[in-house]
This record gives sequence, structure tokens and C-alpha cells, in this order.
Amino acid sequence: MLTTVCFDADDTLWHNERFFKLTQARFAELLADVAPPAHLAERLLAAERRNLGHYGFGIKGFTLSMIETALEVSGNHVPGEVIAEIVAAGREMLRHPIELLPGAAETVLALSHDFCLLLITKGDLMDQERKLAQSGLGDLFDGVEIVSEKTPAVYRRIFRRRGIAPEAALMAGNSLKSDVIPVLEAGGWGVHVPHGLEWALEAAEAPGGHARFCEIADLSELPGVVRAICNKM
Amino acid sequence: MLTTVCFDADDTLWHNERFFKLTQARFAELLADVAPPAHLAERLLAAERRNLGHYGFGIKGFTLSMIETALEVSGNHVPGEVIAEIVAAGREMLRHPIELLPGAAETVLALSHDFCLLLITKGDLMDQERKLAQSGLGDLFDGVEIVSEKTPAVYRRIFRRRGIAPEAALMAGNSLKSDVIPVLEAGGWGVHVPHGLEWALEAAEAPGGHARFCEIADLSELPGVVRAICNKM
Repeated sequence: MLTTVCFDADDTLWHNERFFKLTQARFAELLADVAPPAHLAERLLAAERRNLGHYGFGIKGFTLSMIETALEVSGNHVPGEVIAEIVAAGREMLRHPIELLPGAAETVLALSHDFCLLLITKGDLMDQERKLAQSGLGDLFDGVEIVSEKTPAVYRRIFRRRGIAPEAALMAGNSLKSDVIPVLEAGGWGVHVPHGLEWALEAAEAPGGHARFCEIADLSELPGVVRAICNKM
Repeated sequence: MLTTVCFDADDTLWHNERFFKLTQARFAELLADVAPPAHLAERLLAAERRNLGHYGFGIKGFTLSMIETALEVSGNHVPGEVIAEIVAAGREMLRHPIELLPGAAETVLALSHDFCLLLITKGDLMDQERKLAQSGLGDLFDGVEIVSEKTPAVYRRIFRRRGIAPEAALMAGNSLKSDVIPVLEAGGWGVHVPHGLEWALEAAEAPGGHARFCEIADLSELPGVVRAICNKM
């Protein structure tokens, strides 16, 4: 029996990566005199990768990685005004409005009647809580898990603590690496909802042919997938 | 019946504020030519207060507030080297070793035999997880709650979700404002364990005379307090 449907948040329920991309474009403009965009993007990605184990996921760590990259590519000669602009850009990201993705509101509402719904997301605690509150979907979820990483062990722990058998749980998200593959490994169902924009550090291969995996175009297809799984069981 | 003992983490189980104070001293040295220490400290505290709603609690937000303050007091003329030092200082804080406070290990171990133990803490998700793992106490807790703020509503929600009656729960911590007063308001027991160093934004008045409040010198006194409460009930 499928009892539990889990959702990723960023770029699954609402837009997120586009705000990172917009900020990164502004960052490239600010440093246009110092470094060509491709080199800057490469150094920023290296900083993000290097800092992930210290900062975790989220806007605050991204802001610090931008500052570090600006200092690095300029040999510490970046003007204070530019640093101030980067700090301001990070703070603006923390205020960006919530734009729900197609089918998100309807699907969460429809599935909330018959399933236990969990939100499982990475990122800064306060930022994710703010976005969930602004989304208007908060009350439809039976539980919210803001985690520092999404590994099979993390999913297993969440399911065990809530008394959910892994095969009774489905996770829908835009990241194969974080939302789909580890849930399949933990014994659950994984539904990929590609978003189009993807952070390089989230790239992974689709587990094509896996019996508990499927891909949908947007969240409006999810209730049909859930019904089909329940009918098969 | 008292069934549940909750602990704050930073400056209750292990040192924390001392690393902030050390970093702030280094920050003052770095900016000694630009601003007198008292003025700098006042501007940093103002930045922290202003940013709390955006960044929440933790080292990443503190680092960003230091950078913002350095730019502000220097009129954006702070050298890039200084910004780089601030970023490095923040990253060092994220690696600081765990030093348990007196009585912490013994008390957590002793109480774990007969009580459900919860860790309830604010701060950056990944940083708090790292510290708990390094403390060696992680397995003794039945649950860990890393929250963005500690209000009566947050404590009530934690207790309700875990099926704990508020009057069956005790919270021990160094902050009257975050660990004691909101738990008393939620209907639980509050034990204050002063740490000596306190962040200005955590200052509050002791609820002297409250029937479910007491203060102890360090955590080694907590098992005695718990026994006394159980005997009274």
C-alpha cells in the first residue's frame, strides 16, 4: 500500500534555481572588468563545491562563495562597493517571492485527502520555512523535514522515525541525485519532475528501467502516477 | 509524570559563544585602523539584529554581518584582504572543536536510561549536526530538533507532534529567553544553566518565583533537579 507522498520543495513546488541564475548574472556583470563570465562561473562552481561541506546548501553559503570568488579572481582587489552589492544580492534572494510551479497547488491539495504528505528539502532552515509559509501549502503537509543532505540513510531515517515502510513511500522532485536515486536505494518510489534549470552539482544519470522509477512533465501528472501505483499493488 | 528531558546545545552541552567572542576580537583587530572597538561592536550588533529575520541564527549569518559591518564602518574602503580574513574566520568557526561543558556527558548519559531525551537547538543545520556528531552524545538522544527560533509555539508543536504533555517535559539551557521562558509559557519545566558568556540578543529577566523554574550552576546538578520534580509529582 502506498501511504505517503513526499515532495521536494525548490524547483519542484516553486521556482528557485532561476533566482540563483539571475543573481549569478548580476555577479558576472559586477565583475565584468575583472574576469570573463565563463572563468568566473567556473571559479564560483569550484568555490561552491569546496564549501558545500562547511556551508551546506542555501543562499547564505552561496553569498559567501560569491564573495570568496570575487576576492579570488581579483587578487583581493575587488572594490568594497562590489562586495556590498553581492551581500545585497544575497539578501534580496532571501526575500524573493514564491512562484508555484504548474500543477503544484492542485496536486498537493488533491493528494492531501488520501495520503500522508511530507515535504523533504535541503537549504537554510529559516529560508525554507519562509517559503513554505508564503506558498500557502504549509497546512496540507503532515510533516516537514529540512535536512542538510539527501542520502539513502537520511530517507531511511525519516521513514523509520515516522513508521513508514519505504515501499509505501513515494518521493517526487526535480533532482535525480537528491530526490530520486537515494529514495530508490532506500526502497521507495522515485518520480522525477525535471525543472529545466539545474544546478551543476545536482546532475546525475536517470535510473532508466528501474521498476519503481518514472518521469513526468509536471506535477499535474503525479496523481495519475500515484493511482497507477496503487492499482498495481 | 516527567517523561522527557530536553537540552539546548550551544553553551549548554558545549562551548559556543567563546568562539564568537574570539572571532569578534579578531574582527576588531582587523579593523583597528578604521573604527574603535566599542563603535565596531555596536555596529556589528545592530547588523546582527537587523539581519536576524533574514539569516536566522548561526555562523554563516554572523560572517555576513561582519562583512556588512566592515563595509559600513569603512565607507566601503575596507581592503579585500580584510574581507578575505573575515570569510576565513567564519569558516574556521565552522571547524572549531567541540568542548563539552562540565557535567554534560555524565548527565546526558545518566538521564538517558530513564527519560526520553530531546536536543532542541537553533543555528545552521549542517553546523549543528556536525557538532552533535563530534560531541559523541548523538546516540543518547531520542530526537533532535534544529529550529529557526524558540518560541512557546515552537515548543508546543514539538511536544504535540511527539505526543508529550508539556507538563511532562523539562528543558535545560543557558538562555532564559530561548530555553526557559518560552517552555514555561508552553506549560513545561524550565531549568536555567547560566554559561557566563551571553550574546546580547539572548538577554532576558529570570522568571524568579515561577513554580516550574529553577537555576543550577552546571549540568551535573540536573539529575538531582529531575529527581526532586519526580518526587513532588
